[in-house]
Amino acid sequence: MSVSIRLTWNSGLEFDAQVNDRKIRLNSAEQMDSAFTPMELFLVSLAGCTAMDVQYILERQRQRIKHLIITASGKRRDEDPRSYESIDLEYEVAGEDIRRDAVERAIRLSQEKYCSVRAMVKDSVKLNITYRMSDGNKPEERFGYKPS
Amino acid sequence: MSVSIRLTWNSGLEFDAQVNDRKIRLNSAEQMDSAFTPMELFLVSLAGCTAMDVQYILERQRQRIKHLIITASGKRRDEDPRSYESIDLEYEVAGEDIRRDAVERAIRLSQEKYCSVRAMVKDSVKLNITYRMSDGNKPEERFGYKPS
Repeated sequence: MSVSIRLTWNSGLEFDAQVNDRKIRLNSAEQMDSAFTPMELFLVSLAGCTAMDVQYILERQRQRIKHLIITASGKRRDEDPRSYESIDLEYEVAGEDIRRDAVERAIRLSQEKYCSVRAMVKDSVKLNITYRMSDGNKPEERFGYKPS
Repeated sequence: MSVSIRLTWNSGLEFDAQVNDRKIRLNSAEQMDSAFTPMELFLVSLAGCTAMDVQYILERQRQRIKHLIITASGKRRDEDPRSYESIDLEYEVAGEDIRRDAVERAIRLSQEKYCSVRAMVKDSVKLNITYRMSDGNKPEERFGYKPS
């Protein structure tokens, strides 16, 4: 299966990306308006990939999620190439009677088996992963995730 | 320097990504409307990163570009994780008296030194790179790019 996209230069560092009939604008960090930088989109791509895995796996495990929020914060190198040297990734799951082991398992399956974007940067970017859980009755709890 | 994003689940596999005050919608490949898949955004991120490098470097080399188009087409693995195993990347440069060595140099500097997204997947994804050049007078020519 293949995926294709096309970028057309407008001016300066502004480009329009076309993905089939959908469009997204790119620009450098100094001139954003409604545009995104490539490094922002990389984080959205990584977080989106694991977010979809976790939602799907929790649903299959019959966990009733009310809210699922994923935040990602990447620290860039000071020198070229200014890649992410580490990324803090946090999952916030809220719902009724959600089991901690189900959440941990969903994150693990995504991180180690399914997430395509994670797999491509596995050896180059360190992820620091945490997750928070709440069910409306008990106070929210925060846990660290350890890769196996 | 750090970059942060936040994803909020809507329903199914639909998520809204918030990047400061900008928003982009994610969904699975079956239900797109105006949304993007994480793997589409990854390609946009990779192509956008090198597109900006090449535009910037060509301008610094006083090459007068009229058009710059970058296309990226990624082939996914059949098995999990369904990462890109290879990506075809093509640069189309048009303008007056653009020098081939300047274009090749801009691509090389981006691929080997500057492109942050490329650097993160250097050991995991094979890129097949070509570039096309035209100046309106001569017919368009197509060249292969070899990593050094």
